[in-house]
Amino acid sequence: MRARDLVQPFPVITPDTDAMEAAQAMAGKRLPGLIVCDDDAKPYTILPGSEVLRFLIPAYLQDDPALAASLDDDAADELCRRLTRSTVRDLLPRRQDLDELPVVDADATSLEVAAVMAQLRSPLVAVVQDERVIGAITVSRLLDHLLPGAPSLPEAPAL
Amino acid sequence: MRARDLVQPFPVITPDTDAMEAAQAMAGKRLPGLIVCDDDAKPYTILPGSEVLRFLIPAYLQDDPALAASLDDDAADELCRRLTRSTVRDLLPRRQDLDELPVVDADATSLEVAAVMAQLRSPLVAVVQDERVIGAITVSRLLDHLLPGAPSLPEAPAL
Repeated sequence: MRARDLVQPFPVITPDTDAMEAAQAMAGKRLPGLIVCDDDAKPYTILPGSEVLRFLIPAYLQDDPALAASLDDDAADELCRRLTRSTVRDLLPRRQDLDELPVVDADATSLEVAAVMAQLRSPLVAVVQDERVIGAITVSRLLDHLLPGAPSLPEAPAL
Repeated sequence: MRARDLVQPFPVITPDTDAMEAAQAMAGKRLPGLIVCDDDAKPYTILPGSEVLRFLIPAYLQDDPALAASLDDDAADELCRRLTRSTVRDLLPRRQDLDELPVVDADATSLEVAAVMAQLRSPLVAVVQDERVIGAITVSRLLDHLLPGAPSLPEAPAL
């Protein structure tokens, strides 16, 4: 099994994508993060969902989340409106070196994909073919392929 | 909107859960990680999917993923069989201090939840009521609640 057989379509964003559209894509498709490509579809960096929140939530609230309890829904809406005036570039942490990025070739075996995710502690790898991103593989999809069929566990609050 | 209104059921595991069952739950439900509780259902730590892979994949392959290309499916199956002889305790990174854990009370507001995720850069928070875990909230679910309705973005390789 090769990366090309496991790859899934993934929303494509660039540093110039509207920040609200990017956050909405993450929300609507229930993704833990997005792959950011440059204009040539080469992988540029990863935007984790928590970075969107770090952009939205003022530092004094991050330092003391209990203070957020005193803010109402209007305040939340006002914070979120910052996204409509921004691009993905504004949300990004410092650009990582390319060799720190979780990227695999479409020909990579499932064990190579696993080794890259393990090395970088990433929940996601971008899959490239001819240097262009063709999609992504999540850790849960990879485990689903590697492991035999799954029994079900009890769910909270059933413990 | 409070954490109790956003919380979703989540597979419950303890350090004594069979490692294969835990990994299969992560795979089958497409989760980026699981919440590990102690025997009283109090939050103990988070098990990210990448830690499962770090357990499965030998260190020499993590250091040089290209070497994994030479291993066949039988080798992959053999590596995965290690899970059937292990418990979640064997997969866990060092136990985090409880104040480093992404945990919110069921009464927390959505902004408090956002502040905790932002502070800890976590894609997930555990929700507790009377000190017991009642489920979890993912960053994508929280964004879906905070943001207005989502337009769709093009997906790779459509760029």
